[in-house]
Amino acid sequence: MTVYLVGAGPGDPELITLKAIKALNRADVVIYDRLANEEILQHSPNAKLIYVGKKAGEHYKSQEEINKIIIKEAKNESNKIIVRLKGGDPFVFGRGGEEILELIKENISFEIIPGVTSAIGAPTTVGLPITHRGVATSFTVVTGHEDPTKNKKQVKWDYTADTIIVLMGIGKIEENTAEMMKYKSPETPACIIENGTLPNERIIFGKLENIAKKDINTPAILIVGNVINVFKEIKDFKDKD
Amino acid sequence: MTVYLVGAGPGDPELITLKAIKALNRADVVIYDRLANEEILQHSPNAKLIYVGKKAGEHYKSQEEINKIIIKEAKNESNKIIVRLKGGDPFVFGRGGEEILELIKENISFEIIPGVTSAIGAPTTVGLPITHRGVATSFTVVTGHEDPTKNKKQVKWDYTADTIIVLMGIGKIEENTAEMMKYKSPETPACIIENGTLPNERIIFGKLENIAKKDINTPAILIVGNVINVFKEIKDFKDKD
Repeated sequence: MTVYLVGAGPGDPELITLKAIKALNRADVVIYDRLANEEILQHSPNAKLIYVGKKAGEHYKSQEEINKIIIKEAKNESNKIIVRLKGGDPFVFGRGGEEILELIKENISFEIIPGVTSAIGAPTTVGLPITHRGVATSFTVVTGHEDPTKNKKQVKWDYTADTIIVLMGIGKIEENTAEMMKYKSPETPACIIENGTLPNERIIFGKLENIAKKDINTPAILIVGNVINVFKEIKDFKDKD
Repeated sequence: MTVYLVGAGPGDPELITLKAIKALNRADVVIYDRLANEEILQHSPNAKLIYVGKKAGEHYKSQEEINKIIIKEAKNESNKIIVRLKGGDPFVFGRGGEEILELIKENISFEIIPGVTSAIGAPTTVGLPITHRGVATSFTVVTGHEDPTKNKKQVKWDYTADTIIVLMGIGKIEENTAEMMKYKSPETPACIIENGTLPNERIIFGKLENIAKKDINTPAILIVGNVINVFKEIKDFKDKD
């Protein structure tokens, strides 16, 4: 019996890896979060599907409850392959490490299959080069939604990388961009990618000083840095093409 | 006619996306760099294959020469689909943005298909959680091999993210870790992943103060941060399992 922690990619159901598809094909059970696109579950036509993600207005499962479900299925002797499917990559704000540590406590074997994180897959797909010669030789990826149990420890947004990519940060975009402006010019180009890699994908341009005031729908990521000027040139061509 | 800029993933030929495979299947021409694994080219059995990567001891093609090859193939009317295949993701130090800007000058249509970058795919596969609740809520990816035409502009390594991932940095690891120690404790855990996601993958543990002195073979990535302590626990279990 093996638990496979599998990254489902950024949303587009074709942006899943061949390795992930093979694991889903063989799965007896798939335990999945809210996915950008449930088409991916078609790769597991015979598996038992267990949804553990959020549902609007309903109680959703805590990490502790999810851990219990994974371990219960792993201990069921009729299961050979269990897939724990997560959006993006399991270790990019996916809490994959916590689930692995729980499996270790129970002496359960596991494998991890990476996925394309939305932090990279969404900008790459639209034509936003997060690194670009002469413009950006580094990028930082950060969660904009800090752990609420952290006693409100103030996180400094003094990231010095050329490009900053903020995941899960729309709810706190006003305070996060204000914090970033302590270290970067308010004129720094910023942009939002809503529903990246999906048919309803949408781009919103602005600057660090005004991007928070735009009308933004989630899920969305925020990208800050001069590479957005390169992206504008690429997008202008794409829009005419 | 469309040029597809395609990410081949971190090395394991199964860590390519379904979308990339579909583009390769349809390609008339594949222009490819040095890949960690050439098995990926089997997805293009009928395409003309053009290698533009480095070869030890030989002249290799400059970016300008590569641009010319892409544009020449794009202007050949018998070609409908051209795939420009790159390791990892096209925009993570892949110079994809530069190639796109050249295509725009020539009014050539393009699409970009993201890939799993080795910066994330290599650590995730071995079980190194680059983010982990209570340990790391941000990570920075940086090239360790700065553009040599940049007039030796000194790059400051004052990255404040919890995890630092350095690609293409083994040749300069001594100076890069010395620079990082201006901002981080010499005791900060560090590790090397050689040949990540490939059968000859190898892990080397150390600290910021001594990792440069280890015997390291390329290709390899350097990871620095306290998440390496979580990884040690995971790897100890894996090694016994």
